[in-house]
Amino acid sequence: MFDGSLAAEVDSAERRARLRLARSKRVGPVTFHEALAHFGSARAACHELATTSEADIVREEKALAALSGQFIVWGDPAYPAPLAALSDAAPVLSAVGDAALLARPMLAIVGARKASLAGRRFAGQLAQSLGIQGFAIVSGLAHGIDAAAHEASLASGTVAVLAGGIDQVYPPQNAALHAAIAERGLLLAEAPLGAPPVARAFPRRNRIVSGLSQGVTVIEAAARSGSLITARCAAEQGREVFVMPGSPLDPRYAGSNDLIRDGAILTRDANDILSVLGLPHSTSQPIERPQKIRSGTDTAKVLEALGPTPTAVDELVRRCQVSAAAVAEVLLALELDGRLERHRGNCVSLI
Amino acid sequence: MFDGSLAAEVDSAERRARLRLARSKRVGPVTFHEALAHFGSARAACHELATTSEADIVREEKALAALSGQFIVWGDPAYPAPLAALSDAAPVLSAVGDAALLARPMLAIVGARKASLAGRRFAGQLAQSLGIQGFAIVSGLAHGIDAAAHEASLASGTVAVLAGGIDQVYPPQNAALHAAIAERGLLLAEAPLGAPPVARAFPRRNRIVSGLSQGVTVIEAAARSGSLITARCAAEQGREVFVMPGSPLDPRYAGSNDLIRDGAILTRDANDILSVLGLPHSTSQPIERPQKIRSGTDTAKVLEALGPTPTAVDELVRRCQVSAAAVAEVLLALELDGRLERHRGNCVSLI
Repeated sequence: MFDGSLAAEVDSAERRARLRLARSKRVGPVTFHEALAHFGSARAACHELATTSEADIVREEKALAALSGQFIVWGDPAYPAPLAALSDAAPVLSAVGDAALLARPMLAIVGARKASLAGRRFAGQLAQSLGIQGFAIVSGLAHGIDAAAHEASLASGTVAVLAGGIDQVYPPQNAALHAAIAERGLLLAEAPLGAPPVARAFPRRNRIVSGLSQGVTVIEAAARSGSLITARCAAEQGREVFVMPGSPLDPRYAGSNDLIRDGAILTRDANDILSVLGLPHSTSQPIERPQKIRSGTDTAKVLEALGPTPTAVDELVRRCQVSAAAVAEVLLALELDGRLERHRGNCVSLI
Repeated sequence: MFDGSLAAEVDSAERRARLRLARSKRVGPVTFHEALAHFGSARAACHELATTSEADIVREEKALAALSGQFIVWGDPAYPAPLAALSDAAPVLSAVGDAALLARPMLAIVGARKASLAGRRFAGQLAQSLGIQGFAIVSGLAHGIDAAAHEASLASGTVAVLAGGIDQVYPPQNAALHAAIAERGLLLAEAPLGAPPVARAFPRRNRIVSGLSQGVTVIEAAARSGSLITARCAAEQGREVFVMPGSPLDPRYAGSNDLIRDGAILTRDANDILSVLGLPHSTSQPIERPQKIRSGTDTAKVLEALGPTPTAVDELVRRCQVSAAAVAEVLLALELDGRLERHRGNCVSLI
């Protein structure tokens, strides 16, 4: 297999040929790399095989450019080295957003869609702490844990790997987060533009989530859940698997506890991850500390209205004369700081 | 050190001398065994040392007999072999209840006084399952986890090791459980009758809890909690340490998760314990299945009044025209069966 570090030798014709080969029918990642090895170059392979036309590639490239996106081809200098090393490395990735994040050390945080509040809070705390330390946080833009990890690392650097084409917003409820990551983070997709996120695309996507990352953190994986596939990919790829433990009485932790029994690293906080991976060093851009999401005024109003006694969020909105969205964001920030507790009936209290 | 299996050679005079030596001032367990080794017998030691008088021993023996209790002296056939093997084995144990339990394979279940409902339920489930399999369940008769473990194993075999003398009821709120164990299980104490359960007695007691047991199961150990001392004793004594994992966001699991990180066995259910210890074989008496605590009539009344909607326990008592204690026992039985959920405000619902 080619080494990513030899990328400078890939000229534009060979790069275009790789795109054609990658987008051809019946050419998966393994076939792509085997064809390169067999024919010596994608250009040679395109001479011999029925590959996608140059015109199709130009069309997709234009559509991607319209989204301010670009292709990152296996062999490009921007192609992330940890992923390039795999035998089934994605031949091409569509990228929208800040591609400089690909040079960062990355850590994946994945988990349940139907996550508990505690799980989402833990995901947010880890993503924020490790983001500040310099890790780009990788996840899959699903509901629950994935979304919490992306939200908490939007300011420091977040990378969402999609199962469908990069123009496919999925799940639709995460449209705002998808847009925010396109603007402030990085969206990646192996599938061509327009490809719907079909069921079989998710396990393929999961191998990229782990393949980009030095380690995968699993939060609330039930038995037979998708996060276990990501964890297995990580183990096969020689990446660390970190797992938040949970009660054996909570089925959301059945897969998680099984992973720990099988040798994954029980993870209590960010330090348990940093003590294994070390602090990241090769940061190519300065890390901002997460910004305060809302103005100080909104935060002050909400804080004043809050106390140790549970208060309904609706009542907070009325009392503070701040929008529901603004109150929600202030509450999220407080929660990530460990200063807020949520109660039944959409009530909250200060800790 | 003497071998417990040579116990048959200990005559009644030597046994009485061991009691005198054990009850002497400044003679702890280690000194006791060193004196035996140095002088060759307790009788010889009593000739040379200023030991407690024969009269004092007779007085304590009578007081113990008044509680239907007996001394179990190191070297007695009834002295449990796993404890006898330790260099600081208790020289003498006061025993009230079914001393035949000492011949059973034992498993300790210990944990937080201020335990969560989930922790208590887990303790009860483990104690019940492993009790049915033939283990006598050992604990410390504290509030919370200890009490839940004892209650769930009252029918199959439960052993409470006290920190004070065997006549000291502590904590006072567990008086009924203390009495129930004296009648249906086994109370053990290293301290003489009348000795109050002072603070320094608890770590000494913990080494007996683990020393009796093939393994110690820790449920909800906060940082720096007493259960961690029992776990450390167990590890030093070469016994297995089993730990229920929990959320890193719950301080009740801080010590528990630390133990798992340090190599203790993450425990999801009774099978995780049985797969390490195997099924017990040397059971000296048939194991009863736990009896239904209350009559079928009471249970039927309470069940009829219960449903998936949370109902106040007070209301149940009124509606069923059954005593509060009877309702509480039926609810406990349902809870241990995993059929009952508890809610805020002393409400319960069927699962």
